[in-house]
Amino acid sequence: MPFHYPVMEDWLREALAKGMFNATNQSRESIESSEIVVITVGTPTGFQCQLDYSQLHLAMHEVAQADIKNKALIIRSTAVPGTLMNIVLPHLVTKTGLKPGVNFALAACPERILEGRAHVELYELPEIIGAIDSLSSAIARELFLKIDSRKVILETSPTGAELAKLFTNIYRYVNFALANEFAIWAERYGEDAHEIIRVANEGYPRSNIPRPGFAGGPCLGKYGFLLDNNTTFSSIISVAWKLNEAVPQHVVTSLMNSLGSLYGKRIAVLGLAFKANSDDVRLSPSAKLVETLKAYGAEVLIHDPYVEGTSSLEDVLKNPELVILATNHSNFKDLAATIDRSGCKIIYDVSGIYKPENFTRVEYRRFGRGR
Amino acid sequence: MPFHYPVMEDWLREALAKGMFNATNQSRESIESSEIVVITVGTPTGFQCQLDYSQLHLAMHEVAQADIKNKALIIRSTAVPGTLMNIVLPHLVTKTGLKPGVNFALAACPERILEGRAHVELYELPEIIGAIDSLSSAIARELFLKIDSRKVILETSPTGAELAKLFTNIYRYVNFALANEFAIWAERYGEDAHEIIRVANEGYPRSNIPRPGFAGGPCLGKYGFLLDNNTTFSSIISVAWKLNEAVPQHVVTSLMNSLGSLYGKRIAVLGLAFKANSDDVRLSPSAKLVETLKAYGAEVLIHDPYVEGTSSLEDVLKNPELVILATNHSNFKDLAATIDRSGCKIIYDVSGIYKPENFTRVEYRRFGRGR
Repeated sequence: MPFHYPVMEDWLREALAKGMFNATNQSRESIESSEIVVITVGTPTGFQCQLDYSQLHLAMHEVAQADIKNKALIIRSTAVPGTLMNIVLPHLVTKTGLKPGVNFALAACPERILEGRAHVELYELPEIIGAIDSLSSAIARELFLKIDSRKVILETSPTGAELAKLFTNIYRYVNFALANEFAIWAERYGEDAHEIIRVANEGYPRSNIPRPGFAGGPCLGKYGFLLDNNTTFSSIISVAWKLNEAVPQHVVTSLMNSLGSLYGKRIAVLGLAFKANSDDVRLSPSAKLVETLKAYGAEVLIHDPYVEGTSSLEDVLKNPELVILATNHSNFKDLAATIDRSGCKIIYDVSGIYKPENFTRVEYRRFGRGR
Repeated sequence: MPFHYPVMEDWLREALAKGMFNATNQSRESIESSEIVVITVGTPTGFQCQLDYSQLHLAMHEVAQADIKNKALIIRSTAVPGTLMNIVLPHLVTKTGLKPGVNFALAACPERILEGRAHVELYELPEIIGAIDSLSSAIARELFLKIDSRKVILETSPTGAELAKLFTNIYRYVNFALANEFAIWAERYGEDAHEIIRVANEGYPRSNIPRPGFAGGPCLGKYGFLLDNNTTFSSIISVAWKLNEAVPQHVVTSLMNSLGSLYGKRIAVLGLAFKANSDDVRLSPSAKLVETLKAYGAEVLIHDPYVEGTSSLEDVLKNPELVILATNHSNFKDLAATIDRSGCKIIYDVSGIYKPENFTRVEYRRFGRGR
C-alpha cells in the first residue's frame, strides 16, 4: 500500500494472491483488455493554486491511443466543473474519431470517500453519475451496483456531478473554517470554544458546528480552488481557506505571546500527518506548523508513529521546552501523563484531545481556549 | 399579537381571559411583585451596523430603580459576549449597592427559538444557562424545568452562554450564504444549484447543505455583527453577510440581463416578509429587493397576504411584465397556474418553490439555475 491503511493492506494482499488485481504501466493493453476504464488520476493545484491537469492529460493521451470502441470511460477524479464536457470529451472525439454515446460511453462519477474509510464507504455511499447519455449512465449504474446492489445512484449532468463533488467537499471545509473562526473569537473572550460549541450543538436541531483544529490535506485544502479560481472577488471559500491556512501561524504567535522568542527553543511536535491515524503529509497543517516553527528559529523534533523518518517518542520528549500535539492520532490520547513528566513548560493541544485536569506539572493550552 | 402567529393568538386570548398574563409599563411595581424578572429587550444594530443597546440600558435603569433584593434576573436577549459581566452586572452593583449572588441572582439564558415555532420549541429546545453563581444557576434551572421537566439544561459561563447563542445563529447564517455562493457558481456553469445540492446531500453522511434563497431578517441578518464588529479583518461572517445581502441585487441584475432596463416596467413582487408565513418585514431581503427595483425605475406592485398595506393578488397580477416570487409563503405554492396565465414574460422564483414544468406560457427562471 502506498500509505498507512492496515485493512486495505490485507485486502490488497488477498487480491494479489488470488490474481484479482493487476497493476501495469502498459496502458494500451490494459485498456484494450477491459470493458470499463476508470480514471482516478490526481488533479492537484500548483504553487500559485492554479489547476494542474498534467496527470489528466497524460491519462487521456493514453486512453485515446488505445482502441476504446465499445468501452465505457468513468472519470473518478475531482475536477473543475465542465472538465468532462469541455476537455475530456473533445479530446477523445478529436483523437479517436469515435462518436460519443454511439462508440464509447463516458461518465463523471466523482469519488466522495473519506480517506481511511474506503473499505466501508465504497459500499455505503451514494454514487453520483453524470453521464453523457442514458446508455453511459446505465453502464456506470451497473458497475456500482455490482459493488453493492443497495447503493443509492443519483443521476445528474456531467458538470452537475463535478459541482456536486465540490459542493460536498467545500461544505465541510467551510464549516471547519467557521469552527476555527469561533475558536479565535472564544480565545479573545477568554472562553473555551470546545466547551461553547458543545453547548451550542447539544440537543439543538439546527446546530452541527464541527470542532476547531487543523483543516487541510490533499482534498479539503485544495478543492475549493477548483471553484474559487473562477471568481476575482473574495468568496466564502477564499476566506475559509485563508482562515484554515492561518491556524498554524496562529498557534506559533500564541506560543510566542507566552514564551517570547522561539529562537533556539527545543520544541517537540507530535504528529505530522494531515489527519488522525494516517501517514499522509500532503498539504498537512502540521507540516506547515513545523516549517513555521523552524522559520522562527526553533529546534523542532518531530514524532509521528506513521510517518517514516520522524524521531521516536522517547527522543522528542527528552527535555523539550514545549510540546505541541499537532495531529490527533488515536494512540496520542494516552500520552498526557508522559508529556506531564517530560519537563516541558507548556503542552499546546491543537485538536483539544486532552483536558486541563490531565496535567499537573505542565501548563495546558489548547487552540480555541483563551484562559 | 404584534405579528402574525395564529396559535399564539389563541394562547394569548386564553391567558388573558384567565388573568394569567399581565402587560404593564409600571416596571417598578411589576418587578417588585415578581420573584423572577426576565429581560427580553431587542438588541438591534444601527445604520452603521453598530451596537444599539438603548433598550437594554433602559431596561437596566428600570430594574435598578426597583427593589431587586432576593430576586432573580434572567437576560434572554441576544448580546455581545461579555454583556452580562461587563455591562449588566456593574450597572446593577453600582446602582443598587446590592451584592450579586448574595442579594440577587443573575443569569444569561439566551433565546434560540425559531420565529413562528415558539409554541413548540419553548418546550423542546435545550436551555443554555450562563449564571454568575450556582444559586443563580439553580433558580434559572428551576424556572425552565417548570416549563417542561424534560428540558435539557446546559450550564456554562455568562460569556460562554452569550457566545453559544451567537455561534448557533451564525452557523446557520453562514451555511445559508454558502448555499447562495453555490447558487451563483451553478448559474455560471449553466447548472441548477437546487438539483446539485439535492444530489450532494442525498444519503451522504457529511453533507447537509441548505437550499439557496434569501437569508436575512431581524435575527440572522444582524447577529453576526455582535461578533464581527470585534474584528478589523474580513471574517467568514463578514463575507457571508456581504453575500446574503447581495442576493436581492443579484436577482435584479439577472433580470436586467434578460429584459434590459427595468425602467417603467410593471413588476409584481409576491411576498414582502423575511420568512414564510410571517408578516415580519424587519431587515427582509424581499423588502430590499423591492427598494432596489424601485431604484432602477421599475413600477413595483407588492402582494403579501400577511403584510398590511400591500395590494391584492388580483391587482398585482394584472398584466405585469415580470413576476418575482420573493417570500416562500406556503399558500404561494399553488399559484403557478395563475401566474402562468397572468400575461407576464418571466416568473423569477427566488426560493425555488416552483418547477420549470409548472409553466407553459411564461419563462421560468430561478435563483441558482443558470439555464
